[in-house]
Formats: sequence, C-alpha cells, structure tokens
Amino acid sequence: MRKHISGFSNPTVKYLRSLRDKKHRKRAGQFLVEGLRLLEDARASGRVPRQVVMAEGREEHELLSRLEGEVAAAGGEVITTTPDILSKITGKSNSQSVVGVFDEFDTALSALERDAAAIWLVAQDLRDPGNLGTMLRTGDAVGAGGLILIDDCADPFSAEAVRASMGAVFTLGLAQARWEEFLPWLRSGSGQLVAASLRDAVPYREAPYAAPCFILVGNESQGLPEAYEAECDLRVTMPMRGRADSLNAAVAGAVLAYEVFDALD
Amino acid sequence: MRKHISGFSNPTVKYLRSLRDKKHRKRAGQFLVEGLRLLEDARASGRVPRQVVMAEGREEHELLSRLEGEVAAAGGEVITTTPDILSKITGKSNSQSVVGVFDEFDTALSALERDAAAIWLVAQDLRDPGNLGTMLRTGDAVGAGGLILIDDCADPFSAEAVRASMGAVFTLGLAQARWEEFLPWLRSGSGQLVAASLRDAVPYREAPYAAPCFILVGNESQGLPEAYEAECDLRVTMPMRGRADSLNAAVAGAVLAYEVFDALD
Repeated sequence: MRKHISGFSNPTVKYLRSLRDKKHRKRAGQFLVEGLRLLEDARASGRVPRQVVMAEGREEHELLSRLEGEVAAAGGEVITTTPDILSKITGKSNSQSVVGVFDEFDTALSALERDAAAIWLVAQDLRDPGNLGTMLRTGDAVGAGGLILIDDCADPFSAEAVRASMGAVFTLGLAQARWEEFLPWLRSGSGQLVAASLRDAVPYREAPYAAPCFILVGNESQGLPEAYEAECDLRVTMPMRGRADSLNAAVAGAVLAYEVFDALD
Repeated sequence: MRKHISGFSNPTVKYLRSLRDKKHRKRAGQFLVEGLRLLEDARASGRVPRQVVMAEGREEHELLSRLEGEVAAAGGEVITTTPDILSKITGKSNSQSVVGVFDEFDTALSALERDAAAIWLVAQDLRDPGNLGTMLRTGDAVGAGGLILIDDCADPFSAEAVRASMGAVFTLGLAQARWEEFLPWLRSGSGQLVAASLRDAVPYREAPYAAPCFILVGNESQGLPEAYEAECDLRVTMPMRGRADSLNAAVAGAVLAYEVFDALD
C-alpha cells in the first residue's frame, strides 16, 4: 500500500516542496500540514489528506495508523521517505515526522451562513500569517462562525498560519473577498459591522452589540481605511493608557471578540 | 563628526552584526534597534543610543538630525555606511536605513516599584519573541507597570521582540527572574497573582481582582506548571466554546489584562 521515495530529485518531492510557496499553492489548490497533532485536528473535523508523507523508521502510533487507514480508504496515497527528504519538503532542519497534503477549501462568501453564529471576525489587509492564525484560534474559542479575509491578507493556507491557528483552520468558516464584494454581501442580510476606532466612537464596554456581529480589524501598520470605518454600524474605543494608540491587530480583535461574546451570551 | 565605514570586513560591522545573536548580545550587554520610528520612541523615553548607523545618501530628516545631535552630545558615535553593509548588519535585504545600538537595561526585580501600577504582566517560559513584544505593547496600552519574564523566555532585546513591542520595550518596566526568585519577591510585599486556568477557577468576568494585580501567562505549548498555578491567589477561566481549550498566550494575557483594567479602573 505504501509508496517509498528515496531520491531528492523525485518529482513528488519537488511538487510537495513547491507547496511552501504561495504562488504554487494557489496554482495547485493544495497546501501542506505538518505534524501529527494538526493532522489529528483535521481528521477530527472530517478533513482527510490526499497524501500523507512520513519519515521511514518512525515509531508506530495509533493515531498515525488510523490516519493511514483513512487516507487509503479515501483513495489517497501514503508515502514513506527519509528524514532528510522530509526536511527538504518542509524546509525545517528539525522537521515534524509526518506531513499531510490537503485540497484548499472553498473560501467564497456565499458558503457562509451568517445566522449560524453570533460573532464573525473580519480582517482587512492582515499581513502577518501568525496574526491570521491567531485570529482563527480566537474565533474558535469564542464560537465565531468564521474569519473573513478582506483585500490583501496573508495566505491562511501557509504553514505559519495553519500552525498558529492550532487546527482552527479546519473547523472555522473561512472566506476571502475584496471589500467591494464583502460590503454588498454583508448588506444583503442581517449583520452589524463593528470596528475599533479612535474617531467618533463609544467605549467598547458599553456599546450596543447585536448578533450577527462582524468584528472588523485592520492592517497591522495602517489600521482600517477611513472609508471602511465610515461604513461600520458601530465604532468603539478601547482604553489606551500608554504612549501608543493601538494594540496588535490579533489582540485588538480578541479583546473586542470577548467583549461581544459577553454582551451577546 | 561622522565616521564612515565602507568595508564589509570592518570590525565595527562585524561587532554590530554579532548583536543579532542572543549570545553576543548578552556578552556585550548591547542590542540593535532598527528604523527611525523605534529610535524616535526610544528618544521620547529618554533613551539615547551609543551609536547610530545610517545609510549614506539618506534623505535629510528632521528627526534623524535631532537624533544625531543627541547621540553626539552624549558622547556617542554617528556612523554612515553603504546600504549593502547596513543590510549585512541587520540581516535584511530590504533594510531600514538607520540602526541604533543601545545598552541593555537593568532587568532586576528590585528595580520595579510594584505600587506604581495596578497591573503587572508576568510571562513564564514564553518562547516566541513576537508574543513577548506583543505583551509589552499590551502592557503599555493598559498602563501596566511592566512585564516580568520568568524562567526561560525569549530575549526581550531581540529585533523581533523590540519590533513587536512597537517601542514599549523602552517605556515599560522589564524584569527577568527565575520562579524561585520571583515568588519570594512577590510575597515580600502586596500583590495578587492571577492566572487563567482550567482547574478550580472562577469566571474571569466575576473574579475579585485587587491591585497590584500580577497577571501570569504560561508557555505557548505547555501552559503553566501545575505547581505555579497552585501558588496563584486567583485562578480564573475564560469561555472556550470551540474545539480548543486555550488561546494564544499573548491574546489570553491581553483579554485578562483588559478585564482587570476595567475591574480596577
């Protein structure tokens, strides 16, 4: 059942390695997931990899055996290789000893059911994949319906975003859209758009949140464009007692999300 | 007044480049700060670099001229060099065009004045420099007295931590200690130690916080050791409605810090 790869120049190795690069991921529509823990999260969410690549001589592991069985049952491929080749695929010298290849998910807005959750997270031009993954993780914690990525965000299928999400990339809804698509979609149904702002805003602990509440967070350096803020139904301020006037984007989103969670619970 | 360096093999270049490495920073007791914005934050906090290195042919800039004057007045050195050499120093191909060299600060617990602030952040074994810098930034926002780093945390003087702190590394108190030193120090005066926990805990929105409140956050993978949690005066839980049972460490610290801020304000 298993296929073994022993050569660095094998085309499968070359293909898998290319998936570290966003351009190649988009072309192939596939992404890599490293480590048994994340693969188990995927499995628990009903996502089975197309391929699993593991280092030869790896100890037997119950979870891994089950995963192997499921991949085979779904018509996928189980590949063994050397630890060195696995490191070449992941680009890490101390590589996880198992990697899965998944098809990217549908990220159309139309796939979201806005009334299925009280909270939604929305990020605009969020460039740091760690922040993006952290927002997915926070979204999971507050029971959000999903994360909507507006304009030019980092790729949610990058290794760093997937890892920072701690598996939430598999459970949370995920959509990607330009602002020009998002706004008409939002206004075509119920939904309150909320942003943290310095302008014309109410204290975030006293604001009249309403479900489904869409919490909008802006770019790490620039914040939200003024025109986007102007479209919000509610602008809230958070206390800033120090020298700076802003928080890390993922932190601001989380503090606001927990406040909305408490208000709507 | 200015000194010019044109050779890659100049010993100053070699020295500055070595400060990217934690081991060399500790030996030298100095660290690098990249970019005019962070240097301006430092200046506003009364921290003047020992040396400033800038790319030749850089446009005149009022802030930079002022910084140059202050460095010279303090007996420091202003160095010009080529963009390529500056990139070699910072390790970035698209380098900021100015870098400052600062003496590391005193990070002894004894330098902290616990009654000067209602909130203190405490991180244990926090390994990610981005998380560490983000906690400094959050600490600044909630008016915390400082961040106390327990056991084996990332280096707060690394380029990534300094950058993620958005300048808060210069304004917030900062201490480093082993748990065995921290606990007696804490118990030698007033102070409530609070941690987010899954065990024997009260809801975080209803907990009896008291100033000075020390908010303790654990390692990214392991969380807090059980023995450390047991020493806390208050264990609180945050709602977790998803699949996971934890938040990103910097996010958990921030949500808790804003709650404590509201309770004690």
